[in-house]
Amino acid sequence: MNAVNKNKIIRFENPPQVISFAAAVGKKEGEGPFAAYFDCVDTSPSPDGSWENEESSLQRRALHTALKKGGFSPNDIDILYAGDLLNQSMSSTFGLRDFGIPFVGLFGACSTMALSLAMASVAVMSGAANTAAAVTSSHFCTAERQFRTPVDYGGQRTPSAQWTVCGSGAIILSKERKVQQGGRLHIPDVMLGKIVDYGQKDANNMGAAMAPAAADTISHYLRQSKTSPNDYDAIITGDLGCVGSSLLYELMKSDGIDISSVHKDCGMMIFDREKQDVHSGGSGCGCAASMLCGYFLNKMKHGEMKNILFCATGALMSTTSSQQGESIPGICHLVHIQG
Amino acid sequence: MNAVNKNKIIRFENPPQVISFAAAVGKKEGEGPFAAYFDCVDTSPSPDGSWENEESSLQRRALHTALKKGGFSPNDIDILYAGDLLNQSMSSTFGLRDFGIPFVGLFGACSTMALSLAMASVAVMSGAANTAAAVTSSHFCTAERQFRTPVDYGGQRTPSAQWTVCGSGAIILSKERKVQQGGRLHIPDVMLGKIVDYGQKDANNMGAAMAPAAADTISHYLRQSKTSPNDYDAIITGDLGCVGSSLLYELMKSDGIDISSVHKDCGMMIFDREKQDVHSGGSGCGCAASMLCGYFLNKMKHGEMKNILFCATGALMSTTSSQQGESIPGICHLVHIQG
Repeated sequence: MNAVNKNKIIRFENPPQVISFAAAVGKKEGEGPFAAYFDCVDTSPSPDGSWENEESSLQRRALHTALKKGGFSPNDIDILYAGDLLNQSMSSTFGLRDFGIPFVGLFGACSTMALSLAMASVAVMSGAANTAAAVTSSHFCTAERQFRTPVDYGGQRTPSAQWTVCGSGAIILSKERKVQQGGRLHIPDVMLGKIVDYGQKDANNMGAAMAPAAADTISHYLRQSKTSPNDYDAIITGDLGCVGSSLLYELMKSDGIDISSVHKDCGMMIFDREKQDVHSGGSGCGCAASMLCGYFLNKMKHGEMKNILFCATGALMSTTSSQQGESIPGICHLVHIQG
Repeated sequence: MNAVNKNKIIRFENPPQVISFAAAVGKKEGEGPFAAYFDCVDTSPSPDGSWENEESSLQRRALHTALKKGGFSPNDIDILYAGDLLNQSMSSTFGLRDFGIPFVGLFGACSTMALSLAMASVAVMSGAANTAAAVTSSHFCTAERQFRTPVDYGGQRTPSAQWTVCGSGAIILSKERKVQQGGRLHIPDVMLGKIVDYGQKDANNMGAAMAPAAADTISHYLRQSKTSPNDYDAIITGDLGCVGSSLLYELMKSDGIDISSVHKDCGMMIFDREKQDVHSGGSGCGCAASMLCGYFLNKMKHGEMKNILFCATGALMSTTSSQQGESIPGICHLVHIQG
């Protein structure tokens, strides 16, 4: 078996249009520096019975708001792409089942916003769907108790640890621009990543596990598109955090590329790291999703950014694989958005 | 929120060709009535250190064999669609990471063979991929200990319980027919299912949880395509088992459709239910996958079947959702294959 296969840029002759988008977040995220950009901030303590239900509510609220902002009913959406971090994608299934939309469950860990957006783009471009939606979420308490320790245990966090964001993002793509909510935002191309594994095994250092995958996809993309970092207003990663971002710069510099001047990491942005005590930054599918659907797409809609690469990374391990001594494989999917 | 949205048939002007396929199964499946149809039968007891590794090996072996039979190298495949039943799709990630192919992780529970095949079809049809692969697997021991009880515990099984198949299937689709291994098999259309939940909560009766989803997708498909059951050589479900299949007939009869004469359920076929003690039949993504890639596609390749609907169903619950008293949502994706 050889693994020299190169990720390929998937170009869209008729780029899918970003018609509508929305972000729903939790209380802590609503107290961070980007609070003003989110559509819904949930300030009630666990209103839905369980943390898992609360995460489902975030997805429901994000999609509901995106539908409303775009003037859509659920019947207008042909395919819904969604996934999350929970075992068997529980928050997507239970959050979205009542919409009655043909449903594609995805698993890309924290890369899911980019993966679902890429899949929705392919569907719209191909005509399989006239209109498609991409949704994802994460939640601090559901992730913490599933992947690490019981939340009540209050374990000491390492400096490289990240804080899973309570948040969800939803985006609606269409061939034709039905309304102007998304401005002229469109997706000219995407690149799907392959699984990259450098043998990192520390589940408290996910940034380090995912940085090689980000370097792989971004390097391949820049080389194939014959573009340089400065051609973009931002090259956005999902949740590498401080540790992972430094590693990404190092890996890319050894490849002759310096992205540090245009790089933005949602995990390093979403919280005030001095005041909000989140160590290496935010993480989770909901981190990249809420920052894309809250901050970045709004910046683009208002013409303050015109050309971005959204490159969300995922760490594809499970508690079973970690308990069995396996390393943490990473993946990075890239979505090119222009406005 | 209303849920009147109808699943839509996604038609392909240039139908993706089924170029190559392979099935790899475990010892018990290799002692069943369809043993002669599987490409690889694993007879060694846990040769790969853990049950999870063994399941990963099944995926690796199925894809490797499908590549070999089609004269492909991993570099020829543009996108790989895969998923399984394990938390965070562990057997797909670890089974397929070394192929180095851009990777889309899917979660559709036992519907994953149909979901991955539908997604690969859309990719090939759209030009996003010239050649794409769809892979899935399941394993009795990994599923049993994750979803039910420790395997060593030897709990009594209910009559409605099903036996998770150790098996994997891999299919390679392409725009152009590179070789003749797959004959003239092609996929003219697919239909993605929506989440259907009748409130069933018994995790030992998955067939009953999934039957309403199968009835929903198959009814919508037959009505929209203006075809009747007798237009097909077989309408194949994945793993409804005896209990779920009876329910499917009942549900469809109340809708005025009788599929019993052409219906085949992989779960009712793969084991000799009298001699192999599997109660309501086989189950798991690997059940539908290995029966499709072992038995049905070979029958089509040899002209003994010409027109089938492959309708794999999934039960989208997790242990957490069941412990929290949630019902088991079902889904059914449909792939139309002609030869």
